[in-house]
Amino acid sequence: MKDEGCYSSSLLPYSSFCQSDKESSMDIQKLMHDMGEKARKASRLLSGAAPAQKNDALDIVARQLRGSVDRLMVENQKDLAAGEKAGLTSAMLDRLKLTENRIEEMALAVNEVAALPDPVGEVTGIWTRPSGFKVGRMRAPIGVIGIIYESRPNVTIDAAALCLKSGNACILRGGSEAIHSNNALARVFCDSVVEAGLPAEVVQAVPLTDRAAVHALLKLDDYVDLIIPRGGKGLIRMIMENSTIPVIKHLDGVCHTYVDSGAKVEMALDICVNAKLNRPGTCNAMETMLVHQDMTGSFLQKALERFREEEVEIRGCLKTKEAAPWVKEATDEDWPMEYLDRILNVKVVADMDEAMGHIARYGSAHTDVIVTMNHANAQRFIREVDSAAVMVNASSRLHDGFVFGLGAEIGISTDKLHARGPMGLVELTTEKWIVFGEGHLRE
Amino acid sequence: MKDEGCYSSSLLPYSSFCQSDKESSMDIQKLMHDMGEKARKASRLLSGAAPAQKNDALDIVARQLRGSVDRLMVENQKDLAAGEKAGLTSAMLDRLKLTENRIEEMALAVNEVAALPDPVGEVTGIWTRPSGFKVGRMRAPIGVIGIIYESRPNVTIDAAALCLKSGNACILRGGSEAIHSNNALARVFCDSVVEAGLPAEVVQAVPLTDRAAVHALLKLDDYVDLIIPRGGKGLIRMIMENSTIPVIKHLDGVCHTYVDSGAKVEMALDICVNAKLNRPGTCNAMETMLVHQDMTGSFLQKALERFREEEVEIRGCLKTKEAAPWVKEATDEDWPMEYLDRILNVKVVADMDEAMGHIARYGSAHTDVIVTMNHANAQRFIREVDSAAVMVNASSRLHDGFVFGLGAEIGISTDKLHARGPMGLVELTTEKWIVFGEGHLRE
Repeated sequence: MKDEGCYSSSLLPYSSFCQSDKESSMDIQKLMHDMGEKARKASRLLSGAAPAQKNDALDIVARQLRGSVDRLMVENQKDLAAGEKAGLTSAMLDRLKLTENRIEEMALAVNEVAALPDPVGEVTGIWTRPSGFKVGRMRAPIGVIGIIYESRPNVTIDAAALCLKSGNACILRGGSEAIHSNNALARVFCDSVVEAGLPAEVVQAVPLTDRAAVHALLKLDDYVDLIIPRGGKGLIRMIMENSTIPVIKHLDGVCHTYVDSGAKVEMALDICVNAKLNRPGTCNAMETMLVHQDMTGSFLQKALERFREEEVEIRGCLKTKEAAPWVKEATDEDWPMEYLDRILNVKVVADMDEAMGHIARYGSAHTDVIVTMNHANAQRFIREVDSAAVMVNASSRLHDGFVFGLGAEIGISTDKLHARGPMGLVELTTEKWIVFGEGHLRE
Repeated sequence: MKDEGCYSSSLLPYSSFCQSDKESSMDIQKLMHDMGEKARKASRLLSGAAPAQKNDALDIVARQLRGSVDRLMVENQKDLAAGEKAGLTSAMLDRLKLTENRIEEMALAVNEVAALPDPVGEVTGIWTRPSGFKVGRMRAPIGVIGIIYESRPNVTIDAAALCLKSGNACILRGGSEAIHSNNALARVFCDSVVEAGLPAEVVQAVPLTDRAAVHALLKLDDYVDLIIPRGGKGLIRMIMENSTIPVIKHLDGVCHTYVDSGAKVEMALDICVNAKLNRPGTCNAMETMLVHQDMTGSFLQKALERFREEEVEIRGCLKTKEAAPWVKEATDEDWPMEYLDRILNVKVVADMDEAMGHIARYGSAHTDVIVTMNHANAQRFIREVDSAAVMVNASSRLHDGFVFGLGAEIGISTDKLHARGPMGLVELTTEKWIVFGEGHLRE
C-alpha cells in the first residue's frame, strides 16, 4: 500500500468506465439507492462500535486474506484473461495481477491499520466559556464514503480497512478490468466483518461495470457524505462535474525544486536527483527544477551532467541551453506538464520572486521545495508558497502519509478543503462540537 | 452580525435569482471569468500581507462606513423603492433597510474582526521524524471564496471583513433586491482597502442581477476555491447541483431536545422554553421535543402548559395527546419540519435509543440536546448523536460562533467536511504541510 497510492495518472483509460451491460438505467439507480440506504444504516452501527471490535474485524480480514489466496487468484485470473483479450499492456496487466506475495502485503497493511490509534471519540480541545458551560470538539466518523478508483485491486482492501478503522461505511467502485478481483476481495472483507459481529454493509463493492452506476452514486447525497476519486484526470473531471456530494480530489503533482543563491551544491544535487529519480512515476516526483542565476556555474552544470548520465530528457529555458547546448528548448506547454517520466523542465530565474511566480502560475499546488542556506528566504518560501506541502532542504518525495508519520494514507489530496496532502485516519473523521452545561441558556 | 447569520429560510424566493437583464450570456461569462482571474491575483498579494496591514484596512472600512451613512442610505432607498413596487412584505423591507444604527453595527462588527487574532501562519503542530527532518502544519488562506447570499445587505460587509482578515479574496453575489445597497457597501470596502495599500480586487461584488452570473461563478473552479451559499433551500440545492467548486452549505436546523428519565424538571423546562422561544426564527431553535415516558407526569404536563401560555402550537404523538387533549396530532410530515415559528413537535419515547433513532431519522444533524442527570447517558448521547453540535443540559440556542468564543462567524455549516457548525476565521483557512530538512531524501 505504501507509495503506490500516489500514482496520479491512470494506467487505464477513462473509457473503462464507459462499458455498458444489460441492466436498465432504472434498475441501476434502484440498486445504487439501496446500497446507499444500507450503507447509511450500517454506518450508524459502525460509528458506535468499540475500537476493539473494529480491530478484531481487521485482524480477521488479514487472516482470511491469507487463507483465501487460491480463491482470490482464480478470480484474478478471470480479469487477467479478459485484460489480455482487451489488449492491456504488460505493465497494466502486472498492476492488475494478484500474487501470493501481494496478497500477503495487503494482509500486512490491514494488520498495520488495526494497530494504529483509533481517531474516533478523540476530544481535540475543550474550554470553559464565561457563563460556565464547556465547549469543545470531538472526532466522529464522516459517515458514508464513496471511493471510485481505477486498476490496482489492493485499493479495495486498503480503502475498506481505513474506512472501517475510522468508523465509516464505504461504497467501493473499482475499474471494470478488475471487477472479479475486487468483488472477491470485498467478499473476503465482508465475511470477516460479519464474523466480528459488525454488519456486512459497512463495505459494499458495486457489482456492476456500467458507467451509469458511477453517475447514480454521485447523486446519492442523501446517503453518501464524501466521494474520493483515485484515477486519471478524465475520471476526476467527470466526477467533479457530476457529483452533488463533496469530492476530495487526488490530482496531479507538478512539483518544483528551487535551488536558491548560496545553496549547498552537494545537498542541492542530492535533493534534485532524489526528487526526480527515486520514483519518477509518482505524483511527488519533481517535474521542474528552478535555478537561481547565481547557481548556473556551480550547481546547474553539474546537475545537467548528472541527469544526462541518468538519461533524463531536459527541456530548458534559453539560459539552460546556454549552459548545455544539448538541452531541448522548453515550450509554454512544457511548464505545466506532469511527465511522471524521465523528463525534467529546467529554468534559470533571476531571484526567488520569479521562482515563486513560476510555481504559482504553472504548479499544481502539490509539493514545492526550496534548497537554501538563507533563513529569511526559507521562511518566506514556506509562508508564501501555497501548496499542500512546502519544504526546505528536503526531497519532494518525502511528501507521503507514511513518511510524515500518519501510519497510513488513502491518498494525497490536492484539494484545499478538509484535507490537504496525505489523508490518513484523522482526515477520514470530522469534528463535531460538544457542549456540557448545567442548565445554560441563551440570553 | 450576531445571530442574524443563522436564519436558514430566506425571506426572498429563489426567483429573485431568475431575473434577467440585457447582458448576453457570453458577456456575463467573460465578466465572471475576469473577476475570477483578478480575485486569484489579488489573493496572492493578500496572502502575504502582514496582519497589521489587514487590520489597518479593516479599521479604515469601519471609519468609511460611518462617514458614508448618507450615501449608503440613498442607494438603499433605491432598493426599498423597487422592493415596495415589487410587493415585498413589510418584514422583507425591514430586513433590507439600512439605518444609521445598522450601519454603526456593521462598522462595530468590522472593528471586532480587526481585533481578533490573525489565523494565517499559525503552526498547529510540528514534530521530528526518525530520520531527523521536521514536519508540521501551518495555516494558510483558502484563496478565493465565492459567497452567494440573499437579502440582508450587512452580509456584504461581514463576509468581506472575515475573508480579508483570513487572507482570502472574495467574490460576493447578493440578492437582486439589494443590488444597489450591496454595490455601495462593496465600494466603500474596496476604497478603504486601497487606502490601506491592498489591491481593490480582494473584494468584488458581482454587479449583475442576472442568474447566469451565478451559474458562471459556480464553474470558475480554476479561480475560486470555495463557495459559501447563504439562503433558502432552493438556492442551496441549485448551487449543489451546478457547482464544480467545493460548497460548504448552511442549511436547515431541525433541532431536538431529549428530556431523559430523571432529568431535573425545572432545568428541562428552562432549557426547552429557551430553545424554542428565545428566537424561534433561527436555525438553532428547537423544533421537536422528545420526552422519556417516565417524564410525562412530572415534566411533560408542565411543559405543555407553559408552551400553551406562550401560544406555541403543539403537534404531538398519541401519548402527548393523552397528556393534553388540546394538542394537535403530529403527522409524518411534521417530524422533519423546520418551522422557524411558534410551532413545536412533541413525542414521548420509550428510552434514549428511541430518541436517538428519531434524531437520526428526522433530524438535520444541526444541534441536538439531552437533558439528563445520568452520566452514562450523557456520554453515550454525546458520542453517538451525529450532529454539528451535541449538547448536555444546555439550550440549543447556544450553538453560535460568538457564544462558543470564536469571535465571529460567517455562518453555521451543516456539512461534515472541513467545517462543521460555526465557521469562524480559523475555518476560513486551510492547513498546509511544512517540512524542514537538512538534505533529507526518500529511501
